[in-house]
Amino acid sequence: EIVEAVARAFGQGPLAGRRVLVTSGPTHEPIDPVRYIANRSSGAQGTALGRALAELGAEVVFVTGPADVPPPPGVEVVRVRTAAEMREAVHAALPVEAAVFAAAVADWRVAEASASKIKKTGELPVLRMAENPDILAEIAGLGADRPGLVVGFAAETDEVEAHAAAKRARKGCDWILANDVSEGTGIMGGTENEVLFITEGGTERWPRMAKETVARRLAARIAEALQEG
Amino acid sequence: EIVEAVARAFGQGPLAGRRVLVTSGPTHEPIDPVRYIANRSSGAQGTALGRALAELGAEVVFVTGPADVPPPPGVEVVRVRTAAEMREAVHAALPVEAAVFAAAVADWRVAEASASKIKKTGELPVLRMAENPDILAEIAGLGADRPGLVVGFAAETDEVEAHAAAKRARKGCDWILANDVSEGTGIMGGTENEVLFITEGGTERWPRMAKETVARRLAARIAEALQEG
Repeated sequence: EIVEAVARAFGQGPLAGRRVLVTSGPTHEPIDPVRYIANRSSGAQGTALGRALAELGAEVVFVTGPADVPPPPGVEVVRVRTAAEMREAVHAALPVEAAVFAAAVADWRVAEASASKIKKTGELPVLRMAENPDILAEIAGLGADRPGLVVGFAAETDEVEAHAAAKRARKGCDWILANDVSEGTGIMGGTENEVLFITEGGTERWPRMAKETVARRLAARIAEALQEG
Repeated sequence: EIVEAVARAFGQGPLAGRRVLVTSGPTHEPIDPVRYIANRSSGAQGTALGRALAELGAEVVFVTGPADVPPPPGVEVVRVRTAAEMREAVHAALPVEAAVFAAAVADWRVAEASASKIKKTGELPVLRMAENPDILAEIAGLGADRPGLVVGFAAETDEVEAHAAAKRARKGCDWILANDVSEGTGIMGGTENEVLFITEGGTERWPRMAKETVARRLAARIAEALQEG
């Protein structure tokens, strides 16, 4: 790691001079001033990825929701809370050469969040949802500003490969890392990951390994792709 | 603190030999395997209170939801996630001489949580709520097993004193500590608290102070009440 830090300081490493965006963590969508909708993303995979990319010399913009783990060293940290804030931060970070969307962005927000704490009056609240911006599809669909490489994540609980491959096509991103986040797998909130790496060329099944190892493997693939491109 | 630890080890302190229950932190109510409803309670006030009671010699059962801060030393920790789990843990901890309900228990859970991750199909989900057990009212309403002293918290965003006094009467608890958790106050998730201490005798307005100071003041009042009782 010292060697990498030195290499980075001297502008070395295969990603030296490359600006890369990573999103990480969950988003929180307010219901009222004290309640919100969250998800079990800890930010561990995104954080490991930010670190791995920085270690290869990249200039990393790290846009993070309220994660359980602290952001990695050596990156530019942008903290956000909601999907709408994350979208804004992502657009502000452009242009970048590669963008990896590891955040578990809420698909929906509460359509009408309450400005004061909802009282327990006996009447049960019904929360109607509104669709959040689809940041991955939006960035993958950009014209001139589109990053050369757009990578998404797919957290599934069933038919992982089919759902993830469909997601890759639908979003227009280049690669998808898909995983099974069913409670029994211990992946969401845990230290290990087991991913399918899905590209235009097909699917690679990576064995279960530490999130740091997944991150380094993905960072190396990103470095290869940017060097070829 | 060393003196207190020694005193405790020798079974001293005004609460020596007294069994006290403290609940702390938020609860998380599942929407599906990855999404849940949460609230902005950090567990800081409940944790400070558990510590303060232990420092006075109490045998503390500390029932905590998924808090941001680690539980205090010297207490028996019971970790739970949902309101239903917290209720079960509280009943299992009885009998106790005093019970302080500092947890921000969700008033509602999702009526029909989904066993698999809800897909983004274009149709917007509508979350119907079901009422959670009212743990404070339940324990305050017990007969023979009722703790001699039952203390609740009221997190309000408007008309704090009126809402909290009404809550004290409605729940049947002895004391209420009420605070204003509007975002502007920085209390929920912050390090300071500003409470109204509401008893049968009336309302004391405590100045804004560190959550540790609120905890020590409340612990001292609990010690007085148990010694008188």
